[in-house]
Amino acid sequence: MNRNIERIHGRLAGTGVSYRAHLKTAKSVEVGRRQMLTPTGPAMVSTLKEAERFADAGVTDITYGVGIAPQKLDEVLALRARGVDLSVILDNVAQAEAVAAASSPGMRIPALIEIDCDGHRSGVKPDDAALLLAIAGALEPAAELRGVLTHGGESYVARGRAALEAAAEGERRAVVTAAGTLRAAGHACPVVSVGSTPTFMSATGFDGLTEFRAGVCVFFDLFQAGVGVCNVDDIALSVLATVIGHQHDKGWIITDAGWMAMSRDRGTAAQSVDQGYGVVCQLDGTPYDNLIVVGANQEHGIVAARAGSGASIPDLPVGARLRVLPNHACSTAAQYDRYEVLRDGAVAEKWPRFSGW
Amino acid sequence: MNRNIERIHGRLAGTGVSYRAHLKTAKSVEVGRRQMLTPTGPAMVSTLKEAERFADAGVTDITYGVGIAPQKLDEVLALRARGVDLSVILDNVAQAEAVAAASSPGMRIPALIEIDCDGHRSGVKPDDAALLLAIAGALEPAAELRGVLTHGGESYVARGRAALEAAAEGERRAVVTAAGTLRAAGHACPVVSVGSTPTFMSATGFDGLTEFRAGVCVFFDLFQAGVGVCNVDDIALSVLATVIGHQHDKGWIITDAGWMAMSRDRGTAAQSVDQGYGVVCQLDGTPYDNLIVVGANQEHGIVAARAGSGASIPDLPVGARLRVLPNHACSTAAQYDRYEVLRDGAVAEKWPRFSGW
Repeated sequence: MNRNIERIHGRLAGTGVSYRAHLKTAKSVEVGRRQMLTPTGPAMVSTLKEAERFADAGVTDITYGVGIAPQKLDEVLALRARGVDLSVILDNVAQAEAVAAASSPGMRIPALIEIDCDGHRSGVKPDDAALLLAIAGALEPAAELRGVLTHGGESYVARGRAALEAAAEGERRAVVTAAGTLRAAGHACPVVSVGSTPTFMSATGFDGLTEFRAGVCVFFDLFQAGVGVCNVDDIALSVLATVIGHQHDKGWIITDAGWMAMSRDRGTAAQSVDQGYGVVCQLDGTPYDNLIVVGANQEHGIVAARAGSGASIPDLPVGARLRVLPNHACSTAAQYDRYEVLRDGAVAEKWPRFSGW
Repeated sequence: MNRNIERIHGRLAGTGVSYRAHLKTAKSVEVGRRQMLTPTGPAMVSTLKEAERFADAGVTDITYGVGIAPQKLDEVLALRARGVDLSVILDNVAQAEAVAAASSPGMRIPALIEIDCDGHRSGVKPDDAALLLAIAGALEPAAELRGVLTHGGESYVARGRAALEAAAEGERRAVVTAAGTLRAAGHACPVVSVGSTPTFMSATGFDGLTEFRAGVCVFFDLFQAGVGVCNVDDIALSVLATVIGHQHDKGWIITDAGWMAMSRDRGTAAQSVDQGYGVVCQLDGTPYDNLIVVGANQEHGIVAARAGSGASIPDLPVGARLRVLPNHACSTAAQYDRYEVLRDGAVAEKWPRFSGW
């Protein structure tokens, strides 16, 4: 994890673009403190619960990265009243009107307009000038138009360096276009924000951007390894499992780490190498040859050789312990209330994490 | 939920078979108290944390339903020393030797031998008399052979009443066969246990059984509706979501309930009706016509008409609230630390739940 964070902090050197640490993956104050550039931020969160927990830990520069619902503005105002510069995002006039109505001269809520750079979820199309200006007009002057923001969901299905660079360039172009439209109409639009772990790791052009957001890169996972933006050896999160039996006729080792322990995330299923419910490693993190979790019940993992690999099954008796690397750090970590921090192979610390909303 | 529990408690009337409530779905003392036949059990758990929490709540008859790892026997002994009749399960001689070694004349740990009735996970083949007797011989007399147990995983892919009844009969025959082998060799084997929600709801033959286990039936879910053992109207668990935007050109409604809120469980994907990440309902629980969560990001749900249905999209503005029925009650509930209990459409109580190990 420390090596990943060093890489994160060095990634934007010389570009003039800031790193806004997405804290949704780890949901841990201890991880967040290491991941952010400074003790107070910049930070990105996916829930207001994260905003509250990190505010409690002294973080004061936070963007809440899911389109704001009017019902949540009281929580936003309460956090801002505590001195947290919490900004929200939105992509429609109804939200902008709600944010403006909740603002007051002494408390103008800052909002970023979400841009849809590639059709994967929310956001205004970057060339929809009429909607951009309608939202900006509904926000200002009562509230503050802080900037524009996008997330390149297409990067998750990009394959190869050229496709990843193209996804990053698509992110950049979308927000720079939208910012230009808003500025031409007299809105300052100071923040121009992009982000996803694949584009963060791949981008080559930064013109016009002010910040890059990414979170999974603090731990990485098998999905990101499949995308090609990390190696399996970079994955800093694993699940400790114990062998509880075998079905020798099928070549199965049964463990006590099923899908509740790994999560139901099977993100690698659609990639060129399907890693099942995870890659099985020795306790020191060295993967066994082609040994994966081929199936899972709620509390049972079924470990076997990857289909077609012809790999032999290691002799792992009842009671033997394994580490399993996950498909997706966000979903696997969410199944736990703490991290056991390994130094030199021993648990050196336990860091609490939280979940929920 | 109350209606489901009434049906559970009436299901085995006149069969002479007891209901052992599986508490892994709800992981809630309040739900468990209603689900169990008595305040002290019988109960089934999937983790020792569940055993501890329900023991704290006065439950004294508990079976831990995942093959025991030797490292966990200290926790088992500690719970038994508190007066909990906690039994374990196993399917190999190494486990039996560990259980025998951890037992003492005043504290014989009771163990059930897990039987593999249909090849889906752990267990001894019902006709493998040599292994059954080797395990029993390793257990007794130091520890106690409490009985035999199986789980009919095949029932989850059974389609139609005849296939469900056959799965239930397969469960029954497997454990009755194994119990016969053990009894013929002089082992008492008092408990003969089967269970899964589909077989519990479908079984017609009970000869030789002493108990039936099931858990999901306390809430039910879209997967069980797809199997055919409940109706959508029986589903007693939903996720409350709020509309945060639209992509009108695609017919999408965007909500704040993504896969973190629903879980990554897509159990219905392999059924004849794929329900996406969930069926979308009005606040009173009435499903909208063919409106499902067609996609999800971590904190974004994408609601749209079921592909090919031609259903129209209801007018749901920003701030509108919806209920989403989940694919799988166990995995969705695990994303939350409490249940909000609805009576007459209002939140009457909040019941805590727990997760983890």
